[in-house]
Amino acid sequence: MIHTHKIIFSTRGDGEIVDLSGRLAEALAESRLNAGMITVCTTGSTAGITTMEFEPGLRRDIPELMEKLVPRKGYHHDATWGDGNGFSHLRSSLIGTSFVVSFSEGRPHLGTWQQVVFLDFDNRPRERSVVIQIMGE
Amino acid sequence: MIHTHKIIFSTRGDGEIVDLSGRLAEALAESRLNAGMITVCTTGSTAGITTMEFEPGLRRDIPELMEKLVPRKGYHHDATWGDGNGFSHLRSSLIGTSFVVSFSEGRPHLGTWQQVVFLDFDNRPRERSVVIQIMGE
Amino acid sequence: MIHTHKIIFSTRGDGEIVDLSGRLAEALAESRLNAGMITVCTTGSTAGITTMEFEPGLRRDIPELMEKLVPRKGYHHDATWGDGNGFSHLRSSLIGTSFVVSFSEGRPHLGTWQQVVFLDFDNRPRERSVVIQIMGE
Repeated sequence: MIHTHKIIFSTRGDGEIVDLSGRLAEALAESRLNAGMITVCTTGSTAGITTMEFEPGLRRDIPELMEKLVPRKGYHHDATWGDGNGFSHLRSSLIGTSFVVSFSEGRPHLGTWQQVVFLDFDNRPRERSVVIQIMGE
Repeated sequence: MIHTHKIIFSTRGDGEIVDLSGRLAEALAESRLNAGMITVCTTGSTAGITTMEFEPGLRRDIPELMEKLVPRKGYHHDATWGDGNGFSHLRSSLIGTSFVVSFSEGRPHLGTWQQVVFLDFDNRPRERSVVIQIMGE
Repeated sequence: MIHTHKIIFSTRGDGEIVDLSGRLAEALAESRLNAGMITVCTTGSTAGITTMEFEPGLRRDIPELMEKLVPRKGYHHDATWGDGNGFSHLRSSLIGTSFVVSFSEGRPHLGTWQQVVFLDFDNRPRERSVVIQIMGE
């Protein structure tokens, strides 16, 4: 049994973090499945999917950490394409563009302070798509 | 066919690494499944799941690398909550809190020197839970 | 319905990046499945699997980023084993050795500029194996 949910949303870019937990819970409830795996994928190559405690402090800490680990300037990608978002691509490859969590008794195996989030690393507003797929019984 | 195994264990925190390979092999054997996917999830937002060669050198190298990439001080999270573990949360978001590996002929697609591990990034001892879920035929 | 494809290829090591998209598309077409999940795993503990825009600029930027984040020298692993590839192991644990993407209508949920790639972090040429497993309906 497989359920596929496509979500479209607008982002401002530049480190914006979107909490996907509500969408994930809705998709799981609609599926009426009891146990299985949830895959969350973004089709963007300048974004990432991970988990975090979605609170104001960490919402500033994560973008600031990314600035330190992968600074904005100095990439061959920018010399080739001129869109200046080489850093966005590198952050995406580092964090990863999909996340999987299992579920049982109709509930995902996530902690209370652990939200599934979309990290927008791009340097401009964009329309973004995420696919939540649920496979199980 | 889905099998869900919940594991509880105590950790000392502070970079401790727990090898989950034995638990994973047991869960796979109990499932009697031949092929499919294994998902390993932690419900902690200050821990990570990844793979490594579980040998004494790398067991020191990984925590030391995390100290360099995500130092202990200077996060907004700590100003908000006062528990001083902002770095633990950031390391968790960077490494990721789940890992998936496929299996066939009853064996996971892991190398001889590739163990699935739980990384405890928190700054104090905790009780931890991990869910190993096996889906297949 | 589960299809397992094992791929063997030779690498030169040292930051080489192998685009797996063609192999993934072939495996998906052969499976004749409509919807489900694709897992891409490597059995190497000195390699990683992630996504990127596979273009010449980023193919230089990713290895250069890894040099900065996880430099070549100074690890306990090297003192123990003497093969000098501690950095390769650490990069592997950081990036991760598997990747999952869902698919529907026979197409993976990947963007046009988002390729699934094998990153070889080792310091010498090797024979590498990757397993692409497709589970779905």
